[in-house]
Amino acid sequence: MTVDAHPAREIDSCQCLPHTGRVTTSPTVQDRLLLPLAEECCTPLLRQPITARQAADLARMFKALADPTRLRLVSMVAAHEGGEACVCELTEPLGLTQPTISHHLKILVGAGIFTRDKRGVWAYYALVPAALDSLSAVLSPAG
Amino acid sequence: MTVDAHPAREIDSCQCLPHTGRVTTSPTVQDRLLLPLAEECCTPLLRQPITARQAADLARMFKALADPTRLRLVSMVAAHEGGEACVCELTEPLGLTQPTISHHLKILVGAGIFTRDKRGVWAYYALVPAALDSLSAVLSPAG
Repeated sequence: MTVDAHPAREIDSCQCLPHTGRVTTSPTVQDRLLLPLAEECCTPLLRQPITARQAADLARMFKALADPTRLRLVSMVAAHEGGEACVCELTEPLGLTQPTISHHLKILVGAGIFTRDKRGVWAYYALVPAALDSLSAVLSPAG
Repeated sequence: MTVDAHPAREIDSCQCLPHTGRVTTSPTVQDRLLLPLAEECCTPLLRQPITARQAADLARMFKALADPTRLRLVSMVAAHEGGEACVCELTEPLGLTQPTISHHLKILVGAGIFTRDKRGVWAYYALVPAALDSLSAVLSPAG
């Protein structure tokens, strides 16, 4: 049985809104969530025209969600016992192979939507609620 | 000067949440926003695992937003005088050709994020606030 490779933690600059206090990620990732760039990239979409850079950052986040399998993974992990799941618990419900699931999980970790915690031979994935809160706020008229 | 072709109004089944009363679209489009499918597709992502169909519908909406130019168009049109803009007013700020802008506008109309109203030789695009409200709610923990 193989374990998915540890994905590069290439946290996007748009990993913002740690305001809820519900960040469950590791200190390293959380530190990067607090990057000063966060405020710039998460300007609400409807308040004023966003810049090219803000648009590029936001587009990367939406791209991570623009896939049915990844949306189901987000939904499944969020609803899973303890708010986290192992890749081994996600393959069967989705009817996909482990490498495919791992590929999608890597994209979600790269976008800052999931954290990845390796324990023993398995990696456990958990939602970063602040990431979705951030996107929700970006789309809201009130920001 | 050419006018962009009238896009097919292939409204996605996930054009939901007309609850705000702020829908500015034409009656035809609004009727389609009220499709019974709406409730099913806009189940909050974080409440319980979504179905494959709900994921496919949602992914189409996020895909429409997963592009920097389209995000800038949404932001620019929302902030434009009167909440609508002609394609001729959008090309210069983005530094792109009219056919390119029209291509992106067509995708946004197809996703139900913009309405298109042809007046004279120009088409005017306006945001459907309910579409973004819907996506914002989907990403919110409270739904």
